[in-house]
Amino acid sequence: MQNFDYCTPTRLIFGKDAIENLPDVMKPWKRILLTYGGGSIKKIGLYDKVKGLLKDFEIYELSDIQPNPKYNPSVLDGVKICKEKNIDVILAVGGGSVLDCSKAIATGAKYDGETWDLITYKVKPKSALPIVDILTLAATGSEYDAASVISRTETNDKTAFIDPVTYPVCSILDPIYTFSVSKKQTAAGCADAINHVMEQYFTSDTTLLNDGFCFAEIKSLMENTKACLENPEDYRARAEMMLCCTYGCNGILALGNSYSGWPCHAIEHALSAYYDITHGEGLAIITPRWMKHILSDKTVDRFVKYGVNVFDIDKNLEKYEIANKAIDETYKFFESIGIPMHLKDVGIDDKRIDEMAHHIAVNEGLENAYVPLKEEDIKLILMASL
Amino acid sequence: MQNFDYCTPTRLIFGKDAIENLPDVMKPWKRILLTYGGGSIKKIGLYDKVKGLLKDFEIYELSDIQPNPKYNPSVLDGVKICKEKNIDVILAVGGGSVLDCSKAIATGAKYDGETWDLITYKVKPKSALPIVDILTLAATGSEYDAASVISRTETNDKTAFIDPVTYPVCSILDPIYTFSVSKKQTAAGCADAINHVMEQYFTSDTTLLNDGFCFAEIKSLMENTKACLENPEDYRARAEMMLCCTYGCNGILALGNSYSGWPCHAIEHALSAYYDITHGEGLAIITPRWMKHILSDKTVDRFVKYGVNVFDIDKNLEKYEIANKAIDETYKFFESIGIPMHLKDVGIDDKRIDEMAHHIAVNEGLENAYVPLKEEDIKLILMASL
Repeated sequence: MQNFDYCTPTRLIFGKDAIENLPDVMKPWKRILLTYGGGSIKKIGLYDKVKGLLKDFEIYELSDIQPNPKYNPSVLDGVKICKEKNIDVILAVGGGSVLDCSKAIATGAKYDGETWDLITYKVKPKSALPIVDILTLAATGSEYDAASVISRTETNDKTAFIDPVTYPVCSILDPIYTFSVSKKQTAAGCADAINHVMEQYFTSDTTLLNDGFCFAEIKSLMENTKACLENPEDYRARAEMMLCCTYGCNGILALGNSYSGWPCHAIEHALSAYYDITHGEGLAIITPRWMKHILSDKTVDRFVKYGVNVFDIDKNLEKYEIANKAIDETYKFFESIGIPMHLKDVGIDDKRIDEMAHHIAVNEGLENAYVPLKEEDIKLILMASL
Repeated sequence: MQNFDYCTPTRLIFGKDAIENLPDVMKPWKRILLTYGGGSIKKIGLYDKVKGLLKDFEIYELSDIQPNPKYNPSVLDGVKICKEKNIDVILAVGGGSVLDCSKAIATGAKYDGETWDLITYKVKPKSALPIVDILTLAATGSEYDAASVISRTETNDKTAFIDPVTYPVCSILDPIYTFSVSKKQTAAGCADAINHVMEQYFTSDTTLLNDGFCFAEIKSLMENTKACLENPEDYRARAEMMLCCTYGCNGILALGNSYSGWPCHAIEHALSAYYDITHGEGLAIITPRWMKHILSDKTVDRFVKYGVNVFDIDKNLEKYEIANKAIDETYKFFESIGIPMHLKDVGIDDKRIDEMAHHIAVNEGLENAYVPLKEEDIKLILMASL
């Protein structure tokens, strides 16, 4: 078991009408930057609800934050508003992209130099504006972690930026706000969350405890996502899915495990940086191919345990048979929730695979992953995903 | 799924040599009240280590804190020192009793009236002194929650006091400090921690996710406790047991579950208030009898799920057969780790059962438990435990 230093200070206010706590949560501040994406928060009445609850505050807005949120214009525009208007707090209303963008803005607002230097770890942020969020999509876990992923279109960079100053102060989680999430985004959110768990499960120095947490997460996500797809207004299923996703990236599922390198995320970040595809779909496509690629005598026991516990595969079968069945079941699950399972289905052909594999190999440090991946390995995984 | 409002702000520094972080953790403060129990922290060299690391601080001491920590003298003495010496922070070195006592002191130190009024919820504490702890016993989870249990000998009261101001700022968890814990205390710690999980599992409005977390906890505690008893210096086993215990009472295993009433704890608190027995042993004795008592058509499915997932009982058996086997296995597990499984083994006969049952019924609110318990029910459970 590895040493660790862990703290997630974020307050979670969860459930029906959780938003009624918003004025009380925002009480310490006055000038708010309200960040959001497209029009969905207006369509579901959330925008008006927020404005109504916060009528005594001074609110500035940054809208149109895109999926795979962009450094330019979103982050840069947000930082500018914060500095010009002397913003006290950021209120992010939306999904992981809005929240990630807000985290980058929150640090940039407290720094005199280039925000990109913070995001790329050239400079360590000393502080950040406080962040409160109202979540409308169960997926990334950004509401309960200190990570954000920012894309820079001109360089095809998609960078994960992790710093404790970016933990949200408070996340307001009302499952009802996810009722209107499309089937496509519900499935992609599930794939993202399942992948977070797998990236922490497939590693060394694991424990009975963490393995059990991971299996509980994956099984719950699988069952509840299916229920959400059948009935998008199934409160219980939406609620459990939301809570599952919340635990995805703050480390609680793997305290003491070795660092795994998060290889599927590293590979997918290149896919969505080059092609701007839906993150969760990219992950679902990559995952079973990565699994096949890393299956070996070193890893087979992890796959067996995964297969027996998550898919109830007969533990008396030969171990490679169990492992391969587990990988097939993983593929079939993603397929069953409607995710396109080939890169060509999301508009990616083989033209830039060499370039992407090189980019990933140079930038993502996957030679330190649970199973180290070199450029050639990454290329093979991408080719198998076509 | 129930609404919830959750935050555990405590920082966990976990692993070998975690104590080296102590001077940095204590940096914001100057005058420390060092609290501890008997001589065990001196015997294992921890007392000298702490004093060495903190030689630049002003340290006052409160020692001799007993198991089932006492309001008088321990809490009252601690409050007095804090006020007289203008203490900035409490450093609790020991197990759950030292930590619980320190939490009560921390609130009393910031209050002008009677500390007992805070502990019994007559007055809500506005603040508390910050608490840092170095844990030497894996059991109560006090290092990661806002609860403390304080006994008042003269009235046979043993009261659970829960308030967010008492979350430790930082818990330093080095499994090596638990190597010297006796077999008796190791087993009692396991029973305490398992019971924390069960009190949260046996309730309504549960989720696949929380059930999975609970099973992971119980299975890991059972396996790792056995390993610790076989080899007290098994680092991995001590470490995993320590982490399991840490999650016991801060709510993370049951977010969204209905409140269960914690009936075994309520009953056991009377036992140890009247007879000062080891808390974990009392819990282990009560638990299977409570289980038998509440088994009914309403609860049998929870028992079935518990039996199938924790003890791998054949799910095709008739459901009451599974439930009864699960209860028997629970009993046998506690027995197998050396816990005396009858009240008479810990010096309790039937003389005060009526009195205790009445005390519990009046004070513990168990009519609101998962399965409501009246005075007669409590008496039957106690009689069955003799």
